[in-house]
Amino acid sequence: MSLLVVGSVALDSVETPFEKREEILGGSASFFCAVAGLLSPTRVVAVVGDDFPEEHVELLASGGNDLEGLQRVQGRTFRWSGRYLENMVDRETLDTQLNVFETFRPQLPASYADSRYIFLANILPSLQLDVLDQIDAPKCVASDTMNFWITDAHIEALKRVIARSQVVIVNDEEARLLSGEHNLVDAAESIIALGADRVIVKRGDAGAMLFDQEGIFWAPAFPLRRVVDPTGAGDSFAAGFMAYLARTDDISPANMRRAMIVGSATGSLAVEAFSVDRFRTLTLDQLQERCQAFAQLTRFSPIAL
Amino acid sequence: MSLLVVGSVALDSVETPFEKREEILGGSASFFCAVAGLLSPTRVVAVVGDDFPEEHVELLASGGNDLEGLQRVQGRTFRWSGRYLENMVDRETLDTQLNVFETFRPQLPASYADSRYIFLANILPSLQLDVLDQIDAPKCVASDTMNFWITDAHIEALKRVIARSQVVIVNDEEARLLSGEHNLVDAAESIIALGADRVIVKRGDAGAMLFDQEGIFWAPAFPLRRVVDPTGAGDSFAAGFMAYLARTDDISPANMRRAMIVGSATGSLAVEAFSVDRFRTLTLDQLQERCQAFAQLTRFSPIAL
Repeated sequence: MSLLVVGSVALDSVETPFEKREEILGGSASFFCAVAGLLSPTRVVAVVGDDFPEEHVELLASGGNDLEGLQRVQGRTFRWSGRYLENMVDRETLDTQLNVFETFRPQLPASYADSRYIFLANILPSLQLDVLDQIDAPKCVASDTMNFWITDAHIEALKRVIARSQVVIVNDEEARLLSGEHNLVDAAESIIALGADRVIVKRGDAGAMLFDQEGIFWAPAFPLRRVVDPTGAGDSFAAGFMAYLARTDDISPANMRRAMIVGSATGSLAVEAFSVDRFRTLTLDQLQERCQAFAQLTRFSPIAL
Repeated sequence: MSLLVVGSVALDSVETPFEKREEILGGSASFFCAVAGLLSPTRVVAVVGDDFPEEHVELLASGGNDLEGLQRVQGRTFRWSGRYLENMVDRETLDTQLNVFETFRPQLPASYADSRYIFLANILPSLQLDVLDQIDAPKCVASDTMNFWITDAHIEALKRVIARSQVVIVNDEEARLLSGEHNLVDAAESIIALGADRVIVKRGDAGAMLFDQEGIFWAPAFPLRRVVDPTGAGDSFAAGFMAYLARTDDISPANMRRAMIVGSATGSLAVEAFSVDRFRTLTLDQLQERCQAFAQLTRFSPIAL
């Protein structure tokens, strides 16, 4: 079923306590493409500058992704650089150059109007609304956001995005900021009260929780022995989640739970290498194996007291 | 099957951002008794002073617990007071008066020597060793510890306790301190290398993880809407875990997983009230219901890619 992502494509410079990489492929749409190419080819709306390497374009297009909506404009591509601390969780941003991303206006090609599964990565909420207005009949909209937009200037647009979302994907800090509730159950309920059908709260190495009318589902984080680069974990989670839904064209509660596991699997794979490198050679069998490992991680037989 | 706990009985004064209680029943052995009374009556080795209220003695004895090993000596009972911060996780200790606990030497009544399931709550490692020397043929020893004992003066005794434990129960911070490894998989492996059969790492609101030869099992934390008093969560976890093992007399890997869930359930129940109050009226059916809720929380059907 047709899948669409709107987000960023960037050149990242990433430093960890162990290694350093310069100008590697990054951005939410890039991670989304890398994962979706494996599960359910995606349409892409994003912007790059005229300095964007052709090899990255090929990577974005792999697996049958449709790049008609990838705008290539004069100027430099969005650049971000950051450094991860010893715990490989906290990071400091060293530099952000929005460049061509600063004036990005998502324009959907006419052929994208019939998209059914939509991932609105973290961009200005008013632009997320613009995207939704260009789609005829979305079946499942998932929206991401960030603390920058949970402010007076943007909160009304953000609330309208949430009200039009089947899935809101936030991390625990954003959930608390958005709701004003410290308790995550309360926070999720208050976000659902804004009109979302369900909320996913990403909790880093504590996993991700899905709150919906069926109750709560907890997907653990995969206990990795070595994290190489945490960048893109959240976007790879969203990509696995949405691409699995699109692949199966099933938004039932039971399938949402499976999609949470696929997303957790792709999120855990993403951090095993820099950039989108882990997905360059990943096979469906290997992804299936990781999903199976998640099942092993939480499985227990009935308890009779 | 015979179950034994060695630990502390205290009078706690607890302050949360919402409420305050003075001199309520606390201590690892008290929480253990409250939980075990429901699942598998326990033998108790602990000490109280001559000021210890008779009503608390009755509570410790409830459910058929055997208090022959409860020493009642001249002096004041161990007292602890602390204050929880806004997040209901971090706390500051306001006062600790060891009193009669300072000179506590665990003396097992002869009738306890045939105990099979042993929980060594957090006390001086050399005393934990003394306890083990008084037991004929333990089947399953679970030991808890804390940062105080992970120091030069005590580490050798602690390592001997670990080598004689079928289960080491620590929190994430203790696991890292004990192993010198930040990664929890590495940390657990290094503790197992000291001679423990398996390690449980308690991670607060991220749940608890069991590391053994079968791999890793992750029991989530129950998403509570309201925590009344976090005190005793860890001891109630250990109590549910050990009392379930003793009740079923089964230390197979599959039963360890079920015990992790029962422990997570009793841990989650403990924090819904001050002191051991939640267990005063709790029924087996209600505990079963909570275990069932854990199953709902993590259940997903097979994923075919």
